[in-house]
Formats: sequence, structure tokens, C-alpha cells
Amino acid sequence: MADSPDCDLMSLSPLQLFERVTEQGEKVRALKAGKAPKDEIDAAVRMLLSLKLSYKTATGQDYQAGLPPKDLVLINNGPAKEEDEDLVDPWNVQTSNAKGVDYDKLIVRFGSSKIDTDLINRIERATGQKPHHFLRRGIFFSHRDMDQILDAYENKKSFYLYTGRGPSSQAMHVGHLIPFMFTKWLQEVFDVPLVIQLTDDEKYLWKDMTVEKAYEYAKENAKDIIACGFDINKTFIFSDLDYLGSSTGFYKNIVKVQKHVTFNQVKGIFGFTDSDCIGKISFPAIQAAPSFSSSFPQIFNGKDNIQCLIPCAIDQDPYFRMTRDVAPRIGQPKPALLHSVFFPALQGAQTKMSASDPNSSIFLTDTAKQIKTKINKHAFSGGRDTIEEHRKYGGNCDVDVSFMYLTFFLEDDDRLEQLKQAYTSGELLTGELKKVLIETMQPLVASHQERRKQVTDEIVKQFMTPRKLAFEF
Amino acid sequence: MADSPDCDLMSLSPLQLFERVTEQGEKVRALKAGKAPKDEIDAAVRMLLSLKLSYKTATGQDYQAGLPPKDLVLINNGPAKEEDEDLVDPWNVQTSNAKGVDYDKLIVRFGSSKIDTDLINRIERATGQKPHHFLRRGIFFSHRDMDQILDAYENKKSFYLYTGRGPSSQAMHVGHLIPFMFTKWLQEVFDVPLVIQLTDDEKYLWKDMTVEKAYEYAKENAKDIIACGFDINKTFIFSDLDYLGSSTGFYKNIVKVQKHVTFNQVKGIFGFTDSDCIGKISFPAIQAAPSFSSSFPQIFNGKDNIQCLIPCAIDQDPYFRMTRDVAPRIGQPKPALLHSVFFPALQGAQTKMSASDPNSSIFLTDTAKQIKTKINKHAFSGGRDTIEEHRKYGGNCDVDVSFMYLTFFLEDDDRLEQLKQAYTSGELLTGELKKVLIETMQPLVASHQERRKQVTDEIVKQFMTPRKLAFEF
Repeated sequence: MADSPDCDLMSLSPLQLFERVTEQGEKVRALKAGKAPKDEIDAAVRMLLSLKLSYKTATGQDYQAGLPPKDLVLINNGPAKEEDEDLVDPWNVQTSNAKGVDYDKLIVRFGSSKIDTDLINRIERATGQKPHHFLRRGIFFSHRDMDQILDAYENKKSFYLYTGRGPSSQAMHVGHLIPFMFTKWLQEVFDVPLVIQLTDDEKYLWKDMTVEKAYEYAKENAKDIIACGFDINKTFIFSDLDYLGSSTGFYKNIVKVQKHVTFNQVKGIFGFTDSDCIGKISFPAIQAAPSFSSSFPQIFNGKDNIQCLIPCAIDQDPYFRMTRDVAPRIGQPKPALLHSVFFPALQGAQTKMSASDPNSSIFLTDTAKQIKTKINKHAFSGGRDTIEEHRKYGGNCDVDVSFMYLTFFLEDDDRLEQLKQAYTSGELLTGELKKVLIETMQPLVASHQERRKQVTDEIVKQFMTPRKLAFEF
Repeated sequence: MADSPDCDLMSLSPLQLFERVTEQGEKVRALKAGKAPKDEIDAAVRMLLSLKLSYKTATGQDYQAGLPPKDLVLINNGPAKEEDEDLVDPWNVQTSNAKGVDYDKLIVRFGSSKIDTDLINRIERATGQKPHHFLRRGIFFSHRDMDQILDAYENKKSFYLYTGRGPSSQAMHVGHLIPFMFTKWLQEVFDVPLVIQLTDDEKYLWKDMTVEKAYEYAKENAKDIIACGFDINKTFIFSDLDYLGSSTGFYKNIVKVQKHVTFNQVKGIFGFTDSDCIGKISFPAIQAAPSFSSSFPQIFNGKDNIQCLIPCAIDQDPYFRMTRDVAPRIGQPKPALLHSVFFPALQGAQTKMSASDPNSSIFLTDTAKQIKTKINKHAFSGGRDTIEEHRKYGGNCDVDVSFMYLTFFLEDDDRLEQLKQAYTSGELLTGELKKVLIETMQPLVASHQERRKQVTDEIVKQFMTPRKLAFEF
């Protein structure tokens, strides 16, 4: 699966950003003057808009040609005053709002459904378990056809889970854990099998990386995933580069999807251009195919019509909108989806975290000290400029990254509510809130590291071997 | 591999062709007026030119808008007076010349090299065998880097052969045998291993056909190929749909090729448009990958740098021009090529034969009687209109399809030369020449049928099982 947007822009100074916007504007004019192909111009315009948004976010001012930034109110990563439309696709997440992407708008734009109290209550009834705090707190906030999954489940018709990861580097950050933590919970409470795709082929295609390196990262990432506690008897983890050559069903489904999707469609959905390699252009079919149980004949004992449920971050939805469009045309059930919000960068909720910027993230390899330093130094604060003002007016939990992180990782609802009230009232200072976060993240990361150490190459091999999973459909 | 052009045009009346040209002209104008994407317009213009060429071939006249054909000199499939540029790609072969495509021009256009007497003599010296009559008679007429193959071979460095077929229907015609007959000879005289790709995935993508049907055709076609007499210990036949899911090396090479070829490139090489499915767009990489020995780790015992030689019809060259362009960028040797001319349709040398028109071809399933009837009824004659004229002026071997077929299938050089002289001088009549062809084709097809009967499903399975071939590199 695609990973994290280009966060380089966040590190540029307002003047550098100004220059980037100017350059890009010139490029667009040159393309238009040279009557370049429409898609090339469109891509350049998109980049221009994205740069302008970054400029506005960094400076609080609209870009004006010929007027470099001067006398700035420097509110880099702080809240912008006006909402532009958020940019969300598998490679870009960009918003001008410090609270992050407007997810209600995204539901309307993507045509998905909100996970509301009724649905959460229904999940509780169906499983007999208290809903995960990711559900209770709106971290998984959107779905497609989850009600149908529950209809079938209540009639004793089960399903399988499918999620994935694009193994772009050895180090994963805590944001990468979100879909896996939630998927693990789903696997437990519904008692269903799970397939996890590691798109090492995608990383090879998109990055400057050898096939061998991509596969190595896949196996390294598998260790972190396994450390989340998945049931080895019910979980199959696979690398595309590896599994495509050892499955009688996977390629057949890929080619079926590829027959039913045109370049025009992937251009519209993913923004590909004529200059993109044919590997990128056909890749969406490879992320689509695991939505069909016939891609896993060994796993599901040849059953080819088992319903699939995909928990993933909302930026992966374009792949599965495409998949759901194709499914009936190749005689397959449409996969259902559960969408999560993005995990914010330490610097603010405008973007996802990035594995390529060590300071944007708490990595699963960080030491307790690194975690402390990063949070203290980089976590964007919703607090006031002086202690006096903070005591008087209170902090703003909506933009405070430490508080956001606690909504992800602090499971105790009462404690979280107390912290919110104390911070909002000004009783709790930013430093004190950060301390709570540090004390939450340090043991979480340490225990992950401990569990990861237990994951031997042999265990990885077992998880990655195609085999019948312990489940009868 | 791609098969045969659209021969439907050959069966249209001049008036029908006139209407098709008119319609297509309107379509092009509409596209231009509607400012359609450039590639759509280009494709429509190409089709228009091709239709105009067919019209001219059928009527001997240039198409003139508003002037339907009247008082025609009907020379359908006969020689056109002027040479337009031939159209040759994996899906289209079209020429206005009854002698067939101008192969010398094609060598210049494709940038390949002519197989000259020096090269043929060198092959004779290297193998110690009389060159195959396909070489002596210019049926394999063009090559890329065959001299390098021979350099290496003379220095005890061997190579492997790769050829293939697109299994579009159960019935193969005699023209399909040409590359296999020649490849068998190469396998014998050079004593080298051979891989044969059956592109059932391509047929699924291009035709209205299920995955299952395409795979079934692949296995049926394998029987005809095996009946050519390949050495089971040195030959691996594979279906893409099957082998892609059972090889650790094939997909890795496919994705490597896919990373190094853009949509712009395949658009230029193969004429794909934005409306084509992403399966077609990425398919060229699947035909490219068997050019690299690392696609066959079981076959070549993991050796990843064995030189490849591809005998194929010249229309497949675009795939391998692309492959040769990519090879050094992914650290692989460029495949060498030997190109054959097209096998003419019974109706004339303007196009290849087509498996979709039973009368354009002698099929490997035809009875002796069907062969006789087809040749007598459909083989385009280079003879004169009356016996008297024929005796006086003689026949024209350059356009006579019976004579052309004999150059493919009559191995005896002296006999062929006698026939040529007798026909050219008018001594031999068309009916007599056809009789020689009938007597040549009937036992050839009958013995093929006999050998094919011996090819059991078990033998097919053996040929199609990935295994180490009996050869040390």
C-alpha cells in the first residue's frame, strides 16, 4: 500500500516555498505555451496548487506573484484561516487546517458512509465485545458496506480481513501501527482469518530501490506487524514479489482486474500521466486482487466467494473504489471497507506522518530518550504563548498534537476526558500534557520492541508461507 | 504472442469498403472538431489510412469522397500499382503489394540487419549442418545480433532459444508452424534448450474469452507445438496464466521491465490509447521477460545471464525492440533475434493468414479433401487468364500463392527451381502447380495429425512442468 505524502515541503522556509511556487508557476505557463499534453499540464497545475497551499499554511498569507514573504507572522504548521479543499490520494495528504483533514467532507466526496453510533452499537451486539476505542473515538470513522458484513455475520456467514503495507523502509513509525492494532482487534472479536499484503513491488516501482531491497524491507516490516500479536494460525502475510510467483490464483485475479480497468480510469483515480511507467499504471490491480478470496486458493481451501473486509487509512480508498467497481464485472463480491483518519505528524495535523523524516514521527525503533526529546521538541502545541495566558484562556485540544496522539494510544476513556478538561481549562500546561504522552508512548514502544525481538526469521517464514488457515467457511 | 491482423476487410465488397472509409473519415473529423485527445485522433487516422489502402487494393483506385466505386476493374487481392508504406505491428500487417510486404524496406525501418550469404555460411560453419531452407530462401530474412550469438557460440558460450504463440483458438494453421519448424531445427543444430511462451493472458485481455478458455487453448496449442518434434529434455512450454504463479523469477523480471517502460513508450511502439485496459498496456513486459534466463530459475539452475535468441515473425519485433532497450538498464543481456517473413493468406500476400477465417488458411485439422478444395478454390494464382496466354507469356511466381507456399514447404531445392522455371515459361499450368502443392501439403498435414495424436495430456504436462533442462551452461 502507498505510504505517506512528500513531507519535504514542511521543512522549507517561507522564502524557499515562495521560490518553489514561482518556479512551478513558470513551469505551468511553459507547458501551456508549448501545448503540452493535457495530463502533463494538469499534473503541474495540481503541484502548483499544492505548493500554494503549503505556502499559505506556512505563512498565513496567500501567495502573490512578485511579492516575496516579508514581516511574516510565522505560524508554520499552525492553523490556516480558511479551508481549501483537502488533497487526499494514496501518495498525498494535504490540508490547510491544523485540525487535519475535514473527514465529514471526505465522506461526502468519496461517497462512503459515516460510522455512526448505531453501527458501533451493532458491532458491539454482534461480537459481544466493547467496541475498540478507535471506533468509539471516531478514528475509524467511515465505511463501505459494513452493515452487509454484519448482516451476513449475524446469519453465521463469515468473512476474511485484508489489510496491507508498503514497505518503504526498515523503520516503521507508531502511525503505521493503527490499521494493524485495529485489524488485530477485529480478528479477535470476529474470529476471522486475515491476509496482509506487503506491496514490495509497488515500492520498487515508485522508489529508487532494487527488487531485493524492497523484498528485504517487506520481511523486516513483517516482523513489526507480527509483533502486533496476530494469530499465526489465522494470518497469512505475503510479499507481492514472492507470492505472485507461488499462487495459482493471484495472477488470474490481477489480469481479470487489469482487463476491466482502462488507462483513462486509473488516470482519473490516481492521477497517472503518460510519462508514468507501465508498472505504476497496472499496479492498482495488484492491490485490488487480494480483495477476492480466489487469490488465495491454499488459504481458503479453494473457496472463491468469501466476503472481504478491508480496514485501512482513508487514502487507500481509491484502490478499493476501483476494486468495488470491477468486482461484479468479474463475478466477485465487492469488498467492504473500514476507513481510518490519518495519523498526524508531530508538527501538526496537516499531513500524515512520514517515514522519511525522522523528526515527523515516533519510530518503533526509538529509545525512551529519543521519544522524550522528540515530543518535547517537535509536538505541535495547542497551548498559549505564556503560562499566564494559558491559565487564563486554556489550551486548544483540537490542534494539540500531544492530545491527538493520546486519543490514539491512551485507552482509558476517563483519563483522556480528564486531560481534555484540564488542558482546555488551562489547569494543565503543555509540558504536563507532553509528559503524559511521553509516559504513554515510552512503554508502548518498549513493549513493541520486546515483542519484536521474539519474532525470529523462522516465525516470519511461517507467517509468509501459503497454507490453509485455521478456519472453516 | 499476438496473432494475425483483422482480415475482415478482405471479405468486404468495394462498395462496403467505400462506406467504411466514408464513415471513418467522418469519425476523424468529429474527433478533431471535438478536440479529442491526440492519441485518439491518431488512432482514428491510422485506421482511416488502413481502410483507404484496403479500398485501393480492392479496386485499384484511390478513394475519392462522394464517388462510390463504379465500373471497377475488380482486382481484389491482385497487385496494386503503387507502393504505399506497409503497416506492420503485432496486430496488423497490411500492404498494397501482392508480392507481400517489402521486407528490405522493413529492415531499414526497424533498424535490423539482413541475413546475408556471409551470415548463412557462418551458421553452416558453426553448426556443421546445411542451413535450413528457411534461411537459404530468405524466409528468415532479418536478424539482430545473430553475429554475437555466433561469436559466443564459437567460443563455447551457449545460449537458449525463446519463441511463443498467442493461443487464440483451438485450430492452428500451417503458417503457425513456420517459427516452430525453424526453432526445432535451431534446437537440433545448435543443441540448445528452448522455452516456448503461450500468451493465454494476452488472448484473455484482447479477446472476448474467459481465463479458463484461454488456458484451455494454450494446452491444446501445446499439443500442436509438441507434435513438431521438440526434445522433451530440452524444451519448456509454459502458459503465462499458469507459470506466472509458479516461478520465483518471472514476475520479478516483469516488474523490472514495467518500471523501465512508460505509457508514452508503449503508446509509440504499440499504438495503445487511453481507452485501452491497463492489462494491455502492461502486457509487453510479460512478452519481454522470457528473454532473460533469470525468469526460469528452475530451468537454468539459477543462471541469470544466459544469452537468448528469439526466432519469430517480424511483426513481433516491436516487443523485442522494447526488450532490447530495457535490458541493459536492468542488468540483463539483450536478446538476439531472427525474423521471418509473414506467411501469406491463400487469397494473396497482402496479409498474414488468419486463424479466424477458415478459408484464408490450411488448418492443421483439415482433411486431405479440404486441403485440395481450399487450394483449388482459394489459392491466388499468378497464372494468365487463358491457357493460350499462359503458354505464351508464362505465370508470375512472385504473386502466385501456391508457389509461395511451396517455397515454405517443399524442401527439395532442385524440384522447386524446376517448378519455377516451368511455371514462368508457361510450360506448367496453374492447375498443375496447385496439384504439386496439394500433394505436398496433404502428407505434411496428415503426418502432423498423426504425431499430434501421440501427444497425450501426460506428455503436455511434462513439457509444461518447470524443471531443470538437460543442458549445462
